[in-house]
Amino acid sequence: MLDATHAPTLKSWVPSAKQPGTDFPIQNLPFGRFRRAGSSEPLRVGVAIGDEILDLQQALAAGGWSAEAQAWLAPLAAGDLNAFMAQGPAARKGLRAALSAALREGSAQQAALAPCLVAQSAAEMALPCQIGDYTDFYTSVHHATTVGRLFRPDNPLLPNYKWVPIGYHGRVSSIRPSGQQFPRPKGQFKAPDAAVPEYGPCKRLDYELEMAVFVGAGNPLGQPMTMDQAEADWFGMGLLNDWSARDVQAWEYQPLGPFLSKNFASTISPWIVTQEALAPFRAPFTRPADDPQPLPYLDSDFNRRCGSVQVVLDVLLQTAQMRAAGQGFERVSRGNFSHAYWTVAQMLAHHSAGGCNLQPGDMLGTGTQSGPEAGQGGSLLELSLGGKQPLTLANGEQRVFLQDGDAVQISGRCEAPGAVAIGFGPCIGTVLPAV
Amino acid sequence: MLDATHAPTLKSWVPSAKQPGTDFPIQNLPFGRFRRAGSSEPLRVGVAIGDEILDLQQALAAGGWSAEAQAWLAPLAAGDLNAFMAQGPAARKGLRAALSAALREGSAQQAALAPCLVAQSAAEMALPCQIGDYTDFYTSVHHATTVGRLFRPDNPLLPNYKWVPIGYHGRVSSIRPSGQQFPRPKGQFKAPDAAVPEYGPCKRLDYELEMAVFVGAGNPLGQPMTMDQAEADWFGMGLLNDWSARDVQAWEYQPLGPFLSKNFASTISPWIVTQEALAPFRAPFTRPADDPQPLPYLDSDFNRRCGSVQVVLDVLLQTAQMRAAGQGFERVSRGNFSHAYWTVAQMLAHHSAGGCNLQPGDMLGTGTQSGPEAGQGGSLLELSLGGKQPLTLANGEQRVFLQDGDAVQISGRCEAPGAVAIGFGPCIGTVLPAV
Repeated sequence: MLDATHAPTLKSWVPSAKQPGTDFPIQNLPFGRFRRAGSSEPLRVGVAIGDEILDLQQALAAGGWSAEAQAWLAPLAAGDLNAFMAQGPAARKGLRAALSAALREGSAQQAALAPCLVAQSAAEMALPCQIGDYTDFYTSVHHATTVGRLFRPDNPLLPNYKWVPIGYHGRVSSIRPSGQQFPRPKGQFKAPDAAVPEYGPCKRLDYELEMAVFVGAGNPLGQPMTMDQAEADWFGMGLLNDWSARDVQAWEYQPLGPFLSKNFASTISPWIVTQEALAPFRAPFTRPADDPQPLPYLDSDFNRRCGSVQVVLDVLLQTAQMRAAGQGFERVSRGNFSHAYWTVAQMLAHHSAGGCNLQPGDMLGTGTQSGPEAGQGGSLLELSLGGKQPLTLANGEQRVFLQDGDAVQISGRCEAPGAVAIGFGPCIGTVLPAV
Repeated sequence: MLDATHAPTLKSWVPSAKQPGTDFPIQNLPFGRFRRAGSSEPLRVGVAIGDEILDLQQALAAGGWSAEAQAWLAPLAAGDLNAFMAQGPAARKGLRAALSAALREGSAQQAALAPCLVAQSAAEMALPCQIGDYTDFYTSVHHATTVGRLFRPDNPLLPNYKWVPIGYHGRVSSIRPSGQQFPRPKGQFKAPDAAVPEYGPCKRLDYELEMAVFVGAGNPLGQPMTMDQAEADWFGMGLLNDWSARDVQAWEYQPLGPFLSKNFASTISPWIVTQEALAPFRAPFTRPADDPQPLPYLDSDFNRRCGSVQVVLDVLLQTAQMRAAGQGFERVSRGNFSHAYWTVAQMLAHHSAGGCNLQPGDMLGTGTQSGPEAGQGGSLLELSLGGKQPLTLANGEQRVFLQDGDAVQISGRCEAPGAVAIGFGPCIGTVLPAV
């Protein structure tokens, strides 16, 4: 549903929000948590606008809001994005309209709100909310097929894949915002020709290009969400790098799934782009004609008409050598979330289908987003054909897996005819040498 | 390390703590959180003693504690068991000694503390602490072999089992304390002879007999624990019923492990029995001579000498028909945690071995504890040989899997020569009809 907040003619009085190419025009308005860099003040909730952050604590104090908007802003001014998420879609949509009105050119609130802006360059971003549980899905059939072929050459795509939105529980404690630096993990792995396994630094360290979905109000234990409830509920999306130790994964993953191969670090972007901001980029959800159609609990009219979200997703790499030479990041692959075999609403509806309760701020990873074409793999495992075919960078360096000092950036951008493009902000992590 | 708090001659001035057969003699002193039944007061931390709970908020206010004990009690008096866990082993051991002295016969604190007792029958127990992340291990080789044979007849015990403490991340949001009642989960499953899967109420609902381990101070991200650090760190144990939907599990679990088949409900006992209370029940950790010995990061002298914990574990069942007839619970199996193939310290050391941070109050399930003999299976799946051989109860009812109205109790008891026996309190959950 597009409304006045999406109008392409809409402009903010914040100058940097009018710059072409900004991730954060007034049509976006994502939420995040921050503090002044170097301070130890409690985290504040803010909304990104251009190169600035509107500090919602100060913004509430600045006045000029309707009574309703004041009520929505109250938990945010207290630094609690989860409590706002718990208020559900009406609050999310209502506050978006109020923020859009307050930040647009000609707003009567401009003078009061201008002092409430904090430069993003002067802020230190935290995780955007408290994440209670994290679940990682596996929604790219291209990723599932390619990786399945590497792990199980005779049996790449399992018979349940086209019926069940496959997912597994992930680790919350090691999720960090963009800027995360972590030592190369150690782990247990076994070379195919070795008699016994060994424990040591991972030799096949990889990234995974994913998106993160954040739950809104969620559902009570024992009460599944319908597809329509799920669609109304999800709060927004960010970017996720699900770092993976492939040698550890291959040895440990049967029969209960990935464990230490995934839980040493997960990097997310610090901003949650709301589902309202993503509305102009929705697209029909379709399946190949020969594929099974979703079971009724995973199907809805809305989902068929616009279940997909079109987000161009890039992976960029910067090696230590590139950094030393003053070179920026180099793109190594491009995908699009619209290739996903399951939609966001299907992820939530399936997750709750057995009665499991989803809670405000819970994070659902989409799984690695790989496109149908060669070169669209969302991990080095795929791009290097299982470590066999090195990737050559512009400076001549080669990679089959990540080396110490490598920094990986995931980037997301939404573009559509008649809409102002929006982005997700940075999602960068760096591999340090093993401890 | 046994000390004066373990002396079998030690008696409490609380009369019910002297009753033979109590779970909570003065040698135990487990921690839990409670509120007066029917009230909505904030949760308080208490220590179980006989049929009573020592309210630690009131106990601190009652005075008579050393300066050190006052500092240890401060977070507990504020209702925050996690903050106490974060203080590590010295606080845990120190407060145990102080509580033992305060509650023993002849204590100068008796008069001041007697009014701080709350009858357990007048209290409503909550989860014992805030659980940040929950991981479920798979430490029973007997369970792994029996279940593996049912899911993979040609390949029951996978080659990694004897090298890797297999585990996977679980769901925190649906963990509830003893007394949990939950609707039979729905889910997606496919009969072997069906062309397509269906979504409906689970037909093969099961329990799993497990123990829960609670992390103490934990470790920082990127810094694995050694075996000695892991052994010093773990705070204590409780009981866990990891309810499982077997039909959903069989269809969904490949390749990423169990998901909806496990996340609809998990029931734990409300008391955490500390590792100090379990000290008299430790035993050598041994492997069959032909089995591989643990890799160095999973091995320690202490672990070999007393890595195991001897806990007799029972599963008891009460059907709706039994309840209506005024009959109590009937035991359906008995096992012992000392049969586990991996120890508590190995679970923590392995979990952190890749750098994953464990945090105070994190919960690690041991996996289903099945013994080596027939009739020692820790789940109906095992006892009924995959649903083929019904179990006959004393009243003539039969079970292959759980029926609506069935209540399952898990019970744990530690006994050893020269030690006063201790228990874990109740862990009961009841299956309601599907919604």
